[in-house]
Amino acid sequence: MGRRKAWLAGLMMMVLGAALPASARDEVRNVIFMIGDGMGPAYLTAYRYALAGEPGGAIAPTIFDQLLVGSASTYPMDDTFVTDSAAAATALATGVKSYNGAIGVDNNQVPLRSILEQARLLGKSTGVVTTSQVNHATPASFLANVKRRSLYDAIAEQYVHKRIADKTMLDLMFGGGERYFSRAPGGLALQLREMGWQQAWEMAELEQLERLPAMALMAEVALPHAIDSAHPDRLLRMTDKALALLSSQPNGFFLMVEGSQIDWCGHANDIRCALGEMADFAKAVERAKAFVEENPDTLLVITADHSTGGLTLGAGGTYQWLPGPILQVERTAGYIARKMLEAPESPVEAVWSRYASLPLSSQELAMLALARKAQLDGEGPYHLSSRIGQLVAKRSFTGWTTSGHTGEDVSVMAYGEGADTFIGFQDNADIARKIMSLLGEAQRP
Amino acid sequence: MGRRKAWLAGLMMMVLGAALPASARDEVRNVIFMIGDGMGPAYLTAYRYALAGEPGGAIAPTIFDQLLVGSASTYPMDDTFVTDSAAAATALATGVKSYNGAIGVDNNQVPLRSILEQARLLGKSTGVVTTSQVNHATPASFLANVKRRSLYDAIAEQYVHKRIADKTMLDLMFGGGERYFSRAPGGLALQLREMGWQQAWEMAELEQLERLPAMALMAEVALPHAIDSAHPDRLLRMTDKALALLSSQPNGFFLMVEGSQIDWCGHANDIRCALGEMADFAKAVERAKAFVEENPDTLLVITADHSTGGLTLGAGGTYQWLPGPILQVERTAGYIARKMLEAPESPVEAVWSRYASLPLSSQELAMLALARKAQLDGEGPYHLSSRIGQLVAKRSFTGWTTSGHTGEDVSVMAYGEGADTFIGFQDNADIARKIMSLLGEAQRP
Repeated sequence: MGRRKAWLAGLMMMVLGAALPASARDEVRNVIFMIGDGMGPAYLTAYRYALAGEPGGAIAPTIFDQLLVGSASTYPMDDTFVTDSAAAATALATGVKSYNGAIGVDNNQVPLRSILEQARLLGKSTGVVTTSQVNHATPASFLANVKRRSLYDAIAEQYVHKRIADKTMLDLMFGGGERYFSRAPGGLALQLREMGWQQAWEMAELEQLERLPAMALMAEVALPHAIDSAHPDRLLRMTDKALALLSSQPNGFFLMVEGSQIDWCGHANDIRCALGEMADFAKAVERAKAFVEENPDTLLVITADHSTGGLTLGAGGTYQWLPGPILQVERTAGYIARKMLEAPESPVEAVWSRYASLPLSSQELAMLALARKAQLDGEGPYHLSSRIGQLVAKRSFTGWTTSGHTGEDVSVMAYGEGADTFIGFQDNADIARKIMSLLGEAQRP
Repeated sequence: MGRRKAWLAGLMMMVLGAALPASARDEVRNVIFMIGDGMGPAYLTAYRYALAGEPGGAIAPTIFDQLLVGSASTYPMDDTFVTDSAAAATALATGVKSYNGAIGVDNNQVPLRSILEQARLLGKSTGVVTTSQVNHATPASFLANVKRRSLYDAIAEQYVHKRIADKTMLDLMFGGGERYFSRAPGGLALQLREMGWQQAWEMAELEQLERLPAMALMAEVALPHAIDSAHPDRLLRMTDKALALLSSQPNGFFLMVEGSQIDWCGHANDIRCALGEMADFAKAVERAKAFVEENPDTLLVITADHSTGGLTLGAGGTYQWLPGPILQVERTAGYIARKMLEAPESPVEAVWSRYASLPLSSQELAMLALARKAQLDGEGPYHLSSRIGQLVAKRSFTGWTTSGHTGEDVSVMAYGEGADTFIGFQDNADIARKIMSLLGEAQRP
């Protein structure tokens, strides 16, 4: 009975957002914070049923289901309830809500201290892993303080010089963004190399990194979409390497891992693209979970910054959602559209059948041919790819309501030391505050 | 440290869907099981921001937020991943998944024992409260076993004669559905009166019910929508009365409370309607929570059977959702449309301004006038009300993808004795199995 009441009391404390005082807890040595950009709850359900393939039987829980403990609100601190990735990442990185566009600054553009900086001040090693450019909004909110997310060069500059000045230099960054870290004389990459950073510029080189500090910038800007990539498991591979390098550090580590492109697929209303990104993100989560099992003094937290596209399973009045037709497509709509546009003399069917086994009706093929012609005649750059996305949505009964973000709460998953702190509903800024509380106070030296 | 590990172990057990054995728990004397029909996660977020009214400040957690502990999958056991209310209610009532349309029967149409029957066999009092007819799919799955949800007369008949024959007669039913329980000679209501049931046929009579068994059927079929009703707090009032009557029973009780019409507003893509139903449901939840605080041996579980309409907060590319314009409308779109159709000579603006303070542009008024004319000229029965719903959706940036249901997971809230059992992800059928396990084994006499 005492145990039941303790559970309930604990549950109520969690629901009220109050973490237990750090003194009552075991030490959290390592934190792995994984953010599925745009990965609203509908994406988690879609991923589960896509793994199952066909309806009609009992369905196994996914890695996300196994770790789910609660949910989080995502609203920014401005004149809307719908956040962008910058405001959400600022809340998740610093525990302070801010305006859409803000990178690590509050509503008055005052710089905020992030979990990553706190961890560094506690003597831990730190790193970020992402499938976007490493200075994109989500990682940037852990490492920079600028008033607008579009200030990519300023953000990259802060990754190096502001972090060094603040004695909170990071140890690892994997992703894309070579454009912003030049290897030319005076460039940031060259400066980092002269400071002793190991550097990789393609996937084969990533495997050869042996020690920290280390960086891998494996694309000019973002990495290719998972299903369009020669390395569809790129986030898994980066996460695996990051954990291998960080695990030998003397004081533990803080690692942020972002599945950046779930969001981009959502913006494109391309469900096949999204499921490909989810698969890679899920594998990275499985890798992190295995790390926690080997290192129980590690906290793993997984969430999303917001949902994207207004994804729903079911649309147009039909009580159905069919992953089958989606999984018969093997590339993103953008990739297939590009191939169709590059070969305007080829029948669209010939291009389609190279990248998809989903049979199309003659009406659907005619629609694609018309859309290709319209785009070649000057329609916008996403005209044909939108049509492909809509075709797959229709065949699978996938609903979309927007090319932007939506405001529904996101799921929260946690595992390992302190995971129970995240049970129940919380605000996204609470997630950061709880992690900070579990890590313990850090004083600036 | 021991406590931390126990929490973690417990959390993992919950995540894996395994309840602790009943012997290790305190007794659950009373169960209140509340189902928001169609109340997918987006509705919970919408309700929170509607309470806040305007964006720009910190937002208070709702009653749902305070009690949230996890989520549930809802897929039926047939050829779709998108459930109807019958299959979902059968899973929630019996712990067995079945096909869309099934009421308390499995995939082979074999009758299943519900939580309500189990509770009755354990000597507890039982009841159902709903804003639909009392023999609608959700309550029916707790009280009847038929192969199709549309068999309303057979369901009502089973409420009386099958339950008596099985020695699992219920003690309380509040809602609508007078049509199915006739007071004429030979009718079910008359039979129940002769068995000693107290009966109410309107809200004023509900208050006068003094003892069990008791029934209140306060509409021919369903009760009016909350915001169209003289009693917008009808679910609260029925729940309050039900708890007052059931609380004096010697062996505890099982009570199912359904907020039936959140779903119907979702089918109509009418966000104002949905928020009105949510408000009444939320008040009923607050009443139930207060009961648990006075009676800690009570378990309160709240969930939804599925989501409806493909609701999203944000639509059409804009990063915004505005409850303000929604709350400037005071009746459902169906109600306002009816009033416009009943006065075809009145300007639509005159009717609109009687029920809404949201100012409309001349284009919007012209659109409504055209829609009224089209419906009067023979367009379908929902033509004008759909246009009103779309207008409010557009002004508030509310997205909808379907007139039917969608397959996303639903939220799970719990409070009181055994609430921790529901932490994390589970299937909807697991919810019933966990409640059954907490109640303990019942043998048929």
